Amino acid sequence: MRGLFISFEGIDGSGKSTQARLLAEALRDVGHDVVLTREPGGSAGAEEIRALVLEGDPDRWSAETELLLFTAARRDHLERLINPALAEGKIVITDRFADSSRMYQGTRSGDKRAQVDALHDLMIGCEPDVTFLIDMDPDLGHARAKGRGGTEERFEDFGAELQHKMRAGFLQLAQDHPDRFRVIDGTRDIDTVAADVLATALADIKARA
Amino acid sequence: MRGLFISFEGIDGSGKSTQARLLAEALRDVGHDVVLTREPGGSAGAEEIRALVLEGDPDRWSAETELLLFTAARRDHLERLINPALAEGKIVITDRFADSSRMYQGTRSGDKRAQVDALHDLMIGCEPDVTFLIDMDPDLGHARAKGRGGTEERFEDFGAELQHKMRAGFLQLAQDHPDRFRVIDGTRDIDTVAADVLATALADIKARA
Repeated sequence: MRGLFISFEGIDGSGKSTQARLLAEALRDVGHDVVLTREPGGSAGAEEIRALVLEGDPDRWSAETELLLFTAARRDHLERLINPALAEGKIVITDRFADSSRMYQGTRSGDKRAQVDALHDLMIGCEPDVTFLIDMDPDLGHARAKGRGGTEERFEDFGAELQHKMRAGFLQLAQDHPDRFRVIDGTRDIDTVAADVLATALADIKARA
Repeated sequence: MRGLFISFEGIDGSGKSTQARLLAEALRDVGHDVVLTREPGGSAGAEEIRALVLEGDPDRWSAETELLLFTAARRDHLERLINPALAEGKIVITDRFADSSRMYQGTRSGDKRAQVDALHDLMIGCEPDVTFLIDMDPDLGHARAKGRGGTEERFEDFGAELQHKMRAGFLQLAQDHPDRFRVIDGTRDIDTVAADVLATALADIKARA
């Protein structure tokens, strides 16, 4: 049977990367074969494209060129890592997928959502089976991201207003796709959130079996 | 007044790169401000993408990922070099543009022309004012390309059958877009071809003035 494709989405500092890792560990502990990955990147070629996009002057690429590069990386990630693992029946957990492009590239400079959606339909054409949206107030998320001291500041420099807009956008996506989205309250402590995510994922796995 | 955007297209070994350079020199000699460029590449970012695509194992990218990367490079080339030069009234001559994607990515593995065209319309959305198709029998062109000893073998390894298919495809494009295409017989000696190209270009420049 084809495996299960799970993505984690949320604004910067929401804890989604931590929760993706904790879910992978918990599912492995109960015997599942899990591939943990992330975007942009996740396959050898996609990691090279990621480096090209994220290094250097933040304005070196226009929003459209960046969108094309991220879509190229996603296509490679899908073909080389995600789809082969799903074909082998594995659970694939990715930290970000196309919903991040819908929010980040779709809202960066003006409204590019229609272009982002059309490009996705044309060149990617698939969605995760389950998307965990780790929801959090952006002001709290921003404080967490700063505290983490990450080196990739590009996505963290958009400012509070845009983060609030993106939180609202993610919640709207979840409302538009209730079958796929699981909205998780990320303001609770890490272990409580992880237990919530695990219980939800196990229910999804059971429902498919 | 907006400048003139000229592209050169043709199969490998047709002499289009030489003819692009000779036209640039001849137009400069009569006082025109000319930018000579090429694809894939042409701007700093696009050259980095070009290197990513053309270096390494020819199968490292799928046809779709390669198409996305070339489209990202084209978008950067347009935004950073071509459009600013045209806005300053210059003549831009590029060795390859979107017609090359229509032929190379559109025919590489099965028929991807519809996808190539849709992606172009979505993310590029413009064409040269004039396209010189340097037409030549592929068997003659192949011998020339080999003799040149270029280092980028990827596009030259497609084999005779595909080159014949692409020649026919380029001629079909020219037939579909007669206002834009100028089909030039590339089997003649270089200077004769160059004189033909120059006379045609000068007529196009005069017609616009």
